[in-house]
Amino acid sequence: MSKDKPARRPKAEPPKGFRDYFGAEVTERKAMLDQIAGVYHAYGFDPLETSAVETVEALGKFLPDVDRPNEGVFGWQDEDEQWLALRYDLTAPLARVAAQFRNDLPSPYRRYAMGPVWRNEKPGPGRFRQFYQCDADTVGSPTVAADAEICAMLSDALEVVGIPRGDYIVRVNNRKVLNGVMEVAGVLDPSDPTRFEAERGIVLRAIDKIDRLGDAGVRALLGAGRKDESGDFTKGAGLSDEQAEVVMAFMAAKRNTGAATAARLRDLVGASVIGLEGVQELETMAELLDVQGYGADRIVVDPGVVRGLGYYTGPVFEAELTFEILDEKGRKRQFGSVSGGGRYDDLVKRFTGQAVPATGVSIGVDRLLAALRAKGRVGAAAPGPVIVTVMDRDRMGDYMGMVGELRRAGIRAEAYLGNPKNFGNQLKYADKRESPVAVIQGGDEAAKDEVIIRDLRLGNLLATEFETSKDGWSSHFNQRKIPKSELVREVANTLSITGYQLRGGKVYDQSGRMIVDLGVFG
Amino acid sequence: MSKDKPARRPKAEPPKGFRDYFGAEVTERKAMLDQIAGVYHAYGFDPLETSAVETVEALGKFLPDVDRPNEGVFGWQDEDEQWLALRYDLTAPLARVAAQFRNDLPSPYRRYAMGPVWRNEKPGPGRFRQFYQCDADTVGSPTVAADAEICAMLSDALEVVGIPRGDYIVRVNNRKVLNGVMEVAGVLDPSDPTRFEAERGIVLRAIDKIDRLGDAGVRALLGAGRKDESGDFTKGAGLSDEQAEVVMAFMAAKRNTGAATAARLRDLVGASVIGLEGVQELETMAELLDVQGYGADRIVVDPGVVRGLGYYTGPVFEAELTFEILDEKGRKRQFGSVSGGGRYDDLVKRFTGQAVPATGVSIGVDRLLAALRAKGRVGAAAPGPVIVTVMDRDRMGDYMGMVGELRRAGIRAEAYLGNPKNFGNQLKYADKRESPVAVIQGGDEAAKDEVIIRDLRLGNLLATEFETSKDGWSSHFNQRKIPKSELVREVANTLSITGYQLRGGKVYDQSGRMIVDLGVFG
Repeated sequence: MSKDKPARRPKAEPPKGFRDYFGAEVTERKAMLDQIAGVYHAYGFDPLETSAVETVEALGKFLPDVDRPNEGVFGWQDEDEQWLALRYDLTAPLARVAAQFRNDLPSPYRRYAMGPVWRNEKPGPGRFRQFYQCDADTVGSPTVAADAEICAMLSDALEVVGIPRGDYIVRVNNRKVLNGVMEVAGVLDPSDPTRFEAERGIVLRAIDKIDRLGDAGVRALLGAGRKDESGDFTKGAGLSDEQAEVVMAFMAAKRNTGAATAARLRDLVGASVIGLEGVQELETMAELLDVQGYGADRIVVDPGVVRGLGYYTGPVFEAELTFEILDEKGRKRQFGSVSGGGRYDDLVKRFTGQAVPATGVSIGVDRLLAALRAKGRVGAAAPGPVIVTVMDRDRMGDYMGMVGELRRAGIRAEAYLGNPKNFGNQLKYADKRESPVAVIQGGDEAAKDEVIIRDLRLGNLLATEFETSKDGWSSHFNQRKIPKSELVREVANTLSITGYQLRGGKVYDQSGRMIVDLGVFG
Repeated sequence: MSKDKPARRPKAEPPKGFRDYFGAEVTERKAMLDQIAGVYHAYGFDPLETSAVETVEALGKFLPDVDRPNEGVFGWQDEDEQWLALRYDLTAPLARVAAQFRNDLPSPYRRYAMGPVWRNEKPGPGRFRQFYQCDADTVGSPTVAADAEICAMLSDALEVVGIPRGDYIVRVNNRKVLNGVMEVAGVLDPSDPTRFEAERGIVLRAIDKIDRLGDAGVRALLGAGRKDESGDFTKGAGLSDEQAEVVMAFMAAKRNTGAATAARLRDLVGASVIGLEGVQELETMAELLDVQGYGADRIVVDPGVVRGLGYYTGPVFEAELTFEILDEKGRKRQFGSVSGGGRYDDLVKRFTGQAVPATGVSIGVDRLLAALRAKGRVGAAAPGPVIVTVMDRDRMGDYMGMVGELRRAGIRAEAYLGNPKNFGNQLKYADKRESPVAVIQGGDEAAKDEVIIRDLRLGNLLATEFETSKDGWSSHFNQRKIPKSELVREVANTLSITGYQLRGGKVYDQSGRMIVDLGVFG
């Protein structure tokens, strides 16, 4: 910077699309990740932590000789001209690790990974450019028993974090069945899989939109095309009515049990070799899940599941929360998908030339947390620390000593370390920290070796009920003077009170015991 | 990529200076972070998680109008021309948050943060470009009670993660005392602090090298300069003998107690206003720590502590592990510093123009883990999962059922999901997973509703003792056939055995109970 330029203050804000997480936002997510890790661990999965940075060539999808390969990723060029980028998911780094350590890792290799990923995309409301993923994958197992296990594990994980059975459903489909449908509908030629690629794309996108467009809209997209309300025309796949009928029948193939759905699918795609293989895989998965007790109340075969199909080669699955929440405009809507995955047999091959079968799942932790918050199942405010106030700054050692005593007894506590001159500021601080108890010792108390214990939750109740200031008359009722030797016991007693209730001028605790009689004031 | 170029396989490796962490490496670090977070929490600190990416201007130290500001950081230009970078520590993002949310956060704001940071530096052995930090800071408190608290907390944290008292020492110094020494030595002019800046830099670097260069080497650097063994000459600070004497006396000022050291420092720098202030701060900290029971066995005043002085404005501290380890060449050396911190009162001012007092500490978690590993205090191998082997791939449902039963009983278990054809491969897999127990059920056992429980740890012992194959005769002794209904109980029993001992042809468990009699084989 030249000396002539006026010094400019930096803006105190994160880059666009990034945000900060405070207090309970951090601990609640951590608690959820720990719960999920517990399930993954019980299933025999081991943790893997790769670094945030990979070479662009290892990440794939982006080409090292493009001038600026940062479409979708955050990328930059190293001093030795190599392009590096932040990982955009946890699967690409796993593929790199599985290739790099193929001679050392157990096979099959079961690993879980949790951490942030980065997307260089336009941020939107609730859509950030850094977010958490929480994945489990089995690399090196060709059997659909591995896929079934992942679905069972996903179901267990959802229940462990607090989504009860009935509030979620894991839906399973198979990419091969979809290919079979395409073949029967005449838009997949097994001898030349690249033919009709554009048409297949249109068909898949149409299937994915069934919830929004309904039967007629999808049928239009399968045929000549569809004009939306705004008048915009979307070109269709150009299928004949008979061909479209195959696709529509497929989408309506879901029955009450996995076996019945599979039987219906067998009717529809039995003429296709690949389709039949897919149906058999779905049947095997349904059987394996059934024998372990994962019935249709938890995991169902559902032909409507499409997902990122360029990537998946066999079973695909997603978990959906089925309860309704209110959206930002106050309308009821289903919460929707919180997790997805499937089999991807070609990712490791990029590195080694050898196909390595793999299957896995990714849980969208931030969405899952949002769902639990919407249901009021997380977010119960954890109490703040006990605050030892500072009445006399020359006796800071005494206050620190009390804090140490409380901490050694397992009680979260701190001395007020701001400017102690204004006592009101100390109480405001305690309020902001959601502190349950303040400890006060002025010169008079110190001389008699006493302390004052103030129950701040009781004070808040009284202040709210009687619309008075927290430091006003209510302090006659919510504090008491005790010998300093009883500090820990009295604080612990006060912390054990919950469920304050005011009835008839008296305050009671959760067990109905009277805590204080307000007398004429109440 | 043009179509003519031959397709090239990407290299399966992370970028230079980055690495992957597997299994216990991940869980051990996580356990340590959880323990430290517990201490920070007890002290009233709240978690904060900022994103990995910040604007270069918010990070500071680097200028937005430099063409490529990636000296030391990984930086890149956003599509709207803004320079972004990966955070290089956790303090710069805290300063940004403290400025951005100054009206909403409690004051003082106590926060802790843990996570990776990135440095675009030349990697070396054991030095990586991504590593963990684990910080706690108090923003908005001017009193050295806050600094004393951080030192006490650091001491508690080290003990909680497994460094016993006596194996570490927290050393405390004060930047103001150092400034006082400079003033008395004539290389700091309080009316023009920029004068003698180069000389002060040389003096500070010389102090920092006392362990390596000894008295004579430091004295040479304080004076005309020093020629090292290779003949290279380092220019000195140009101090006279009298001036150098002040600095040397300062470095030798450490006494047996904090009070005695402070008294000696008072003699040395009493003539400097700023120096005296620093001595008084050290005295206050020593008193506050003393009253809380943090004596010289844990926290000492030590004038030899310099640290990154451009940054710190008052107390500075570091934690050092005092035990010896063997370095890579087998030589004994002290493990050294694992944590450091201090008071930095100007970081938030960059954003707001207002000085905000702050103090904090950063624990180098990866170094601390390395120390505990060197002492054998972490790294006890956690057992792998129970492996249910697959003898008959058509009965996968049965095997998955057994796995489910074990998991519901809280036992980590998995079915073998590789190709089951070769049973030896299944045992090799169990071995690689450090599996304690294999469950086996062939057609004969299935017909009688039985299973075989094989104790793999016992098998390993016998195979090692008798140099025989694990699947050989020893399997007569380390497995037994049981009714399938007793699966969970028998596996749990086998897992509860520890401390296998072979004596006189018999194997005993930790309690001296005989597990198996090898008879004529032993």
